Order: sequence, then C-alpha cells, then structure tokens
Amino acid sequence: MTDQQQRFLRNAWYAAALSTELTDKPLARRLLDEPMVLYRTASGKIGCVTNRCSHRFAPLSLGKVKGEHLECGYHGLQFDGTGACVLNPHGNKQIASNAHIAGWPAVERYGFIWIWPGEAAKADPAAITPYPFNADPQNFTPVYGYLHVKGNYQLVTDNLLDLSHVEWLHPMFAQSGGVDAHKTEYGVEGRSVFARRAKPNVELQGLARLYWTSPSKRFDARSNMVWHAPANMVFDLGATECGAAPEEGVCLPNAHLVTPETEFSSHYFWSVARNRQIDDDAASAKLQGIAQRIFSTEDVPMIEAQQVNMGAVTDLMSLKPVSLEPDIPAVRARRMLSEMIREEAAGAGRAAAE
Amino acid sequence: MTDQQQRFLRNAWYAAALSTELTDKPLARRLLDEPMVLYRTASGKIGCVTNRCSHRFAPLSLGKVKGEHLECGYHGLQFDGTGACVLNPHGNKQIASNAHIAGWPAVERYGFIWIWPGEAAKADPAAITPYPFNADPQNFTPVYGYLHVKGNYQLVTDNLLDLSHVEWLHPMFAQSGGVDAHKTEYGVEGRSVFARRAKPNVELQGLARLYWTSPSKRFDARSNMVWHAPANMVFDLGATECGAAPEEGVCLPNAHLVTPETEFSSHYFWSVARNRQIDDDAASAKLQGIAQRIFSTEDVPMIEAQQVNMGAVTDLMSLKPVSLEPDIPAVRARRMLSEMIREEAAGAGRAAAE
Amino acid sequence: MTDQQQRFLRNAWYAAALSTELTDKPLARRLLDEPMVLYRTASGKIGCVTNRCSHRFAPLSLGKVKGEHLECGYHGLQFDGTGACVLNPHGNKQIASNAHIAGWPAVERYGFIWIWPGEAAKADPAAITPYPFNADPQNFTPVYGYLHVKGNYQLVTDNLLDLSHVEWLHPMFAQSGGVDAHKTEYGVEGRSVFARRAKPNVELQGLARLYWTSPSKRFDARSNMVWHAPANMVFDLGATECGAAPEEGVCLPNAHLVTPETEFSSHYFWSVARNRQIDDDAASAKLQGIAQRIFSTEDVPMIEAQQVNMGAVTDLMSLKPVSLEPDIPAVRARRMLSEMIREEAAGAGRAAAE
Repeated sequence: MTDQQQRFLRNAWYAAALSTELTDKPLARRLLDEPMVLYRTASGKIGCVTNRCSHRFAPLSLGKVKGEHLECGYHGLQFDGTGACVLNPHGNKQIASNAHIAGWPAVERYGFIWIWPGEAAKADPAAITPYPFNADPQNFTPVYGYLHVKGNYQLVTDNLLDLSHVEWLHPMFAQSGGVDAHKTEYGVEGRSVFARRAKPNVELQGLARLYWTSPSKRFDARSNMVWHAPANMVFDLGATECGAAPEEGVCLPNAHLVTPETEFSSHYFWSVARNRQIDDDAASAKLQGIAQRIFSTEDVPMIEAQQVNMGAVTDLMSLKPVSLEPDIPAVRARRMLSEMIREEAAGAGRAAAE
Repeated sequence: MTDQQQRFLRNAWYAAALSTELTDKPLARRLLDEPMVLYRTASGKIGCVTNRCSHRFAPLSLGKVKGEHLECGYHGLQFDGTGACVLNPHGNKQIASNAHIAGWPAVERYGFIWIWPGEAAKADPAAITPYPFNADPQNFTPVYGYLHVKGNYQLVTDNLLDLSHVEWLHPMFAQSGGVDAHKTEYGVEGRSVFARRAKPNVELQGLARLYWTSPSKRFDARSNMVWHAPANMVFDLGATECGAAPEEGVCLPNAHLVTPETEFSSHYFWSVARNRQIDDDAASAKLQGIAQRIFSTEDVPMIEAQQVNMGAVTDLMSLKPVSLEPDIPAVRARRMLSEMIREEAAGAGRAAAE
Repeated sequence: MTDQQQRFLRNAWYAAALSTELTDKPLARRLLDEPMVLYRTASGKIGCVTNRCSHRFAPLSLGKVKGEHLECGYHGLQFDGTGACVLNPHGNKQIASNAHIAGWPAVERYGFIWIWPGEAAKADPAAITPYPFNADPQNFTPVYGYLHVKGNYQLVTDNLLDLSHVEWLHPMFAQSGGVDAHKTEYGVEGRSVFARRAKPNVELQGLARLYWTSPSKRFDARSNMVWHAPANMVFDLGATECGAAPEEGVCLPNAHLVTPETEFSSHYFWSVARNRQIDDDAASAKLQGIAQRIFSTEDVPMIEAQQVNMGAVTDLMSLKPVSLEPDIPAVRARRMLSEMIREEAAGAGRAAAE
C-alpha cells in the first residue's frame, strides 16, 4: 500500500468503467495495478472489491451477484461491498477473520462508474469532477467510448494538455496557419491546470463542421482543456459565428478520463456531448464512430509507441526530454500530481507513526 | 538437478503423453521444466531423452527415428534411449564423451506414456499407479483427453481433491441440496490421500444419467478420489439403484494425471472409462466431448485465473489462504508431497556426500 | 555505447534493409538493439537516425519525409540525416542543444541499404562487402528476400558456414553419398573465413537442376561460402559439366547478410543471382519462392529452436557444445569477430582516456 501510494494518488475519484460496460455480470478490471471487480447489486448499488477470493484466490468476476452480495464461482463464499465475507457454505460455516478482502467506495455518475481507491472515510461523491453536459438531456446528447492504452496514463494527459499535436497527428482537425494561428493561454487554478486555445476567424474544420448550418465559411473556434488530478479532464470544444458568444454556437463538451491499469497501461474513457441534432440517433452513432476512430488510430498508437521508446520507465521527465512551449501545462500537471502523491504518502506516513 | 529435486519429486512415474499422441514422429514436450523428446523405436520401445542435441543444441524432436535410435535433423548425430550418442557421421566419426545427453526410463501403460525423471536404477514399472479399467476391454471402454493448463500442477490436484466445487463450477453436476447433501470422508492410506463423497438417494444428475436405463428417479451416487504422489489420481465415479452394490450400477472410473510442464504450467491427461454401452463408438465420442468441454471450459479457466492471481508464486499455502473444511485432503496431499520432495533431496544430498 | 561496443562490432557496414523495402515512407527497424528509422530524402539520399524524437520520444517512423529532412508526426520537429534538429515550429522556435539525436552513415548498394553504426569519420562505402553479381544486369539477374529470425545472428552464420547440414535439413539438396562425397576446404584469408565444398561428378540435384539444359546426368557442383565480419557472406553456388571451368556452368552467386536486431533476434537478407534465363520473370519468381521457402521453413525454424534451447545465452561456445569437423570455419569466424569487438572496445577505451 505504501508502495502504491507512492506510485498513484489513492485518495481521488477515478473512472473505472463506462456505465454501459457494467451489466448484470461482474466486470474484472485491473485498476491502479490491483485486480478489482465491479458489479451492480440487486438494489442497484455499485460494488468494487478485490478480484481475488481469500479462499483459493479465484477471481470473483467468475462468480455471480446474489442479491446485495458477490458469490465466488469456485466454492461459494460470499462478500459484501466493503469486502467483508458474509457467507461460508462449508463445514461448520464459520467465517475466519482473514476471509475478508479489500473493498472500495464506488458510485455511478455522468455515465461512468467511479471508484475511490483510498481511505473510504474520505470518499465524497461531491468531489467527482463534474461533467454536467452528460446529465442534461434537455440540452445535450453525449456519446461514449473506451480505449485501452499500452502506455503510462500521464502520456495520455500530455497528449490532451498539448493540443498543438492536432496540427500533425489529426489531419481532420489541422488548421491552415498551423500552430501560429492559435492564441494559447495556460495556467493553474487551485488544483487544476488549464490550456486554452482560441482560433478566431478561421476556416471551417473539425467536428463543428458536422453541425454547422449557417452559410458562413469562417468561425471562431475554441478548444479549452482543464485537467483535474489525477487525470480527469474537461474539454470545452466549440465554434461560433465570428464574434458571437460561445453558448450561441456549436458546443461539443468532452470528458477525457484516464485511469492507470498498471504503470505501463491505462484505461481511457471519453464522452463527447453536443447541443445540436440531440434527438438524432444516426448523428450520435456517426459522432461516436469518428471520435473512437481518431483516438484509436491516431492518438493511441502514438502514445503506445512513446511508451515503447521509453522502455520500463514511467516518468517521462526523468528521461530529460526537450520541452517546448506547448508542453507547459502538461509539465505543470505532472508536477502538481507528483506533489499531491508526495503529500499523500507523507500524510499516510504520519498517520502510521501516530 | 539439486534445484529441481527441490522443486519436483524426481523418483516417480509421471504421465508424459497420451498413447495416441505418440505417432511415428518424435514428440517434443517440456516436463518438469526440462525439454524432453518422446519417441517410439522401430521395435516399439518408448524413448525419452533431452530434446537438445549436444552438438549445436538443435531439438531432437525436429529429427527422425532411425531404427532404435533418434537422429538429429540438423547434422545427423544419433542417440539411443539412454541418451548415449551412438553415431557421428562427420570427419573422423569419433564420438566425444560429452556428446551424450540425458535419457530417462519410459514405458507405455493404461493408454498413457510414462516417464521416470529420476534415478534410472530405481524405476520399476510395477510402481505405476494402476488404472486397470483402461486395460479391461471386456468390461470397460475408456475415452481419453489432454489439456494444457497455465497453472501450477498442484492447483489441479486441489481442484480434484475438493469436489465441493462441483456445486458452483459445474451446473451439469450440481446436486439439489448442495454440499449439505454429501457425506464426505477424508483420509490418508500409506502415501495416498482419499476424499470420498457419498450422495445417497439423490435425484438423477451428471454423467450417470447418460447411461441410466431403469425408471428410478433417484439413485445412490459416489465420487471418490484417491491421490497418489506426485499428482496421479484415480476417480471412482458411479451411481446405483438406491441401496445396491456399486459394481451393479453405472461405473465411470477416471484417471486424472497431472504433470508439471514448468512450475507455472501443467499437462493434464485424463480418461473416463464406462461399463455401459461399451461397444458404442458414438457414445464414446459423446462422453469424450462432454468431459473435455467441462474440463476445458469450466475447470481450466478457473485454475489459470487462480495462478494469475497468485502471480509468480507456486506454493499456494505460502500466500496464507483461508482454508475450509473440504480443503482438508488437498492440504494433506500438499504436505505429503512436500515431505517426499524434502526426503528425496536429503537422500540425494547424503548420496552426494558419500 | 561502451556496453554495445562490447556486444556488437560498431565500425562495420551492416545490411539494414532490402532496397525494395524502403519506399517513400520511413521504415522503423531495430538494429544492433537500437531503434532506428531509415528513409529516402527527396534527392534520393538514405538517412538513418534514432527512431525516437528528442521531444516526447515519439518514433520518427510515424512522421514524414519533408525534402531532405524527417519530420516528427506528433509535434513537427524536423531532423537531418546526422540527427541534428533543424526545425522547431513552436513558441520562439529556438532549438535546444539537446534536441539533437543520433544519426549514422547510410548508403544503398547491391540492392541493399547499408548502415555504419560506429564512428561516422571511419565510414567508407568502398569497404562494403562486394556483391558485383547484383549490379551486373548484362550477366546476372538477382532475386531478393528478407527473413526475421528469433535467434542470435551468429547462429545464422554457423548455419551458413557449415553446409554439411544440407544433407539432413534440406531434402532438395541432399546428395547421394552424403557428407562423405564432399571435398571440403576451410581457411582464413585476412579478416574473412572460407568454407569450400566441392562435389565432383555427382548426380544432378538442387537449384542447378532448374537451369540445366545438357543431357548429362552428372555434374561437378560447388558450394563455397566466404564470411566477412560481422556477418556478411558471399556464397558461390554453381555446377558445370564434369571437368569444365566454373564460369562455363550454371552460376548462382548468393548474398547472405545477417544483422542483429537484438542479441536474440536477427534480420536476414539474402539474394540469389543467376546467369541463366536472366530475362525470364517467371523464372525469377520461381527461384525467389523456392529460396524463401527453404530458408523460412527449414533453416529459420531450426535456428529459432536452437535459441530457445540456449535460453538467454547468446554465446553458443560458452555452453560448451560438442564441436565436429564441419564446425571449424564457423568457430574460427566466431573467434575472429570476438577479437575484432575486443579490439574496437579497447580502442574506444583508449580514445576515451586520451
């Protein structure tokens, strides 16, 4: 645990699954380098416990939900959502104290399943990064996707906080004028980092073009990313008539949520909501397909190739890379997260010493 | 060798192949973490030598049987069944003393190929665990199968000595009444361990149902497992009219033979014989299919998942699992085998010191 | 670098690709255990630089050739053929001194791309092992192939310098009379090693048979291999009427070029030229197919199996193999190469100390 507090921030909400991934069957998923199993109970609560029975180490994901409990599929032990063993069907039916396993707070919100892999007493669902456009069906229709990435989660953060890469990696979004056409602004607000790119009076391009109905050939575009530790990002993507207020235009707010599977692989959950054609299922399918294709064929291969080139190293900065102007926000986010992990480890150390 | 004597029992018969696997071509198989090659000579003897030529380390399994010898397929050296090099076709044709490789006693019995990976002088085929029903065509017809298991061989022993798992893992065999309906008896006889489960007066279920011809709806069922070190099991599976003698009913005696491939993977050979419909080839094919399907889709995935959860650990007990009442026989078998390996290593140490 | 000078000879020409593999797209290839990228510039020069951008470690093989430079596909940095960074499109556009990456001399010759992974000042294309029959279209038509081998490159050298293996591994080439029918001669000339096998007055067999037009049933065959460090071989394969001069007969001169990918895997480039049916494309396709099939289904599986049997060892001799008469040239080549690597490392050590 000490070791893992040093590798990952523990007292934080992490996305663990898309809501649609969690059916009536338990879902095995490695999160923060621990085998976990997610499940919905009969009453609709979300459970998250270690995916390893205390008896013979069978994965509980091969078992079944029985009411509010999770039953091991090998010899029938049952566990509640805190990991407590609540049934031994064998022999004298007594439950040994070491039959209990670990469990973590888990909730469903904004179309995602969230877990808190730290101290349960500190888990407050109100602290989950808000994605209100995913819970506002009057105004927005979201689409969702999942990608597995064979790379450290912070490489995905780097990708998202430095959108200059769009000009080289994503032909569909490249802007005539290149990076010089962008007005960029970077900064820190509390425990978040933002990277704003305004592209005033540019040619129509990118996703906004799908929903553009006016005859104007140019628009004001924006792509503003906000990072919240550990790797939960809100992306305000949109375009308006030149000079108009953002909310009058096409709004495509995104969620980008990256959760470590191991130190060298990540779960990447995303959503893109839109305020246009919100009742059009075909438009939803088209948007989902475009986004999933771009992320999976353009971003993920690049990130995975970076990790291959970094070898068995997770801390990019330890390899002394050259840093350029658009790396500023990602480097700040990396420093802030390191500091938070250090603080948490020190606090855990103090608590252990008391 | 010392190291491997500590990991595996050496002076013992292990199943190495199904008889039907060994055709006129040499068969490469890793056994006890050593590369071995099995072959039949022209006169029908079984050979087992290291699958690595002493010359340039080519696997001899890529070569050919030439009469009573095995010829390397790269440069033509030939070896006999003790591993002695008997032909060098090159230059002065002399055979260097270090051209010899290791060989082990090997025989064919009960539909399996057996090897003795220890001291050849101690190898006595009479010590092979008997499976007489596989050599009694008047009364029994056996079917055979092979499974590769990515898990330590003792996890397979655990599975077979704790048949309470049937109630959760094998819907076809689950009994109404669950584990409470079983009368279980465990014990040690010499160097074997038994686990007997009597299920008196229960509803028809399982394999026996395939061969049941009487109108009775209930029967007395039994499933009695006997383990012989290292991991050769005899399984007396059967059902009779309530109160009748076992031999009057449906008898389905099984062999379950588990041999380490490495510390983390195993060869699992099985047979199921029957005393019903013994001349019916379609019944044989059906029975083989059912058993292979159950083992491969229900048992093996569970055992492999256990090993994944155990990581690079082979000794389950070192991980301090919770043990339940039905684990008693498997835990005894693990202890007995450890003791035998310790004795053997100590004996080898004494012999080396003399 | 010191470590790699000890593992591989650095100041030498290695084949890096077939000419036909290098199109208008950069080609990623691990060579001498380093990730490299090969490319052709607009003017037709060959570039070879580290396949890892200094900025965020993206592989440059995912980028594009822009004129004489290679552009990173993630954020647009550009590099020249020496690895110097020549363009930063971001911010103040300054280029940090640590933005430069490694680059190596590279040329195209004899149908192959060659690199010199050592000191650029010492790279002289005139030192490339000559394969004149690949550049003599009046008299010869070559065909080419590439194989990936999961084995140390010196195992491929062993294979090629000990052609006695043909009698066991290659039924198409086996000679009645076996190895006893060969007149073999081995020796060292400067920094090369030769292994000559003359087979006078033998039955028609092998590739020569494809091009034989006379009614003679017997011929004089020869298969003479010359090794040049590190693993560039010239193979004079041919057959004539009994007693005739070599150049009057069927000449099938080969290139065999083996380059370490890692210590445990190799790139194997080959060509077979012929002085018969030189304008016949179907004959070319047939010859290419036969050679590629024999190498890939007979030699490569054997070499890969040797490496498996050797485990994590690259130096065959350290495992104390039995050596036979036909191993003499390969053992000499191994010793010569070891000595050259030792000399180079010592020279680099002296240079570093000065």
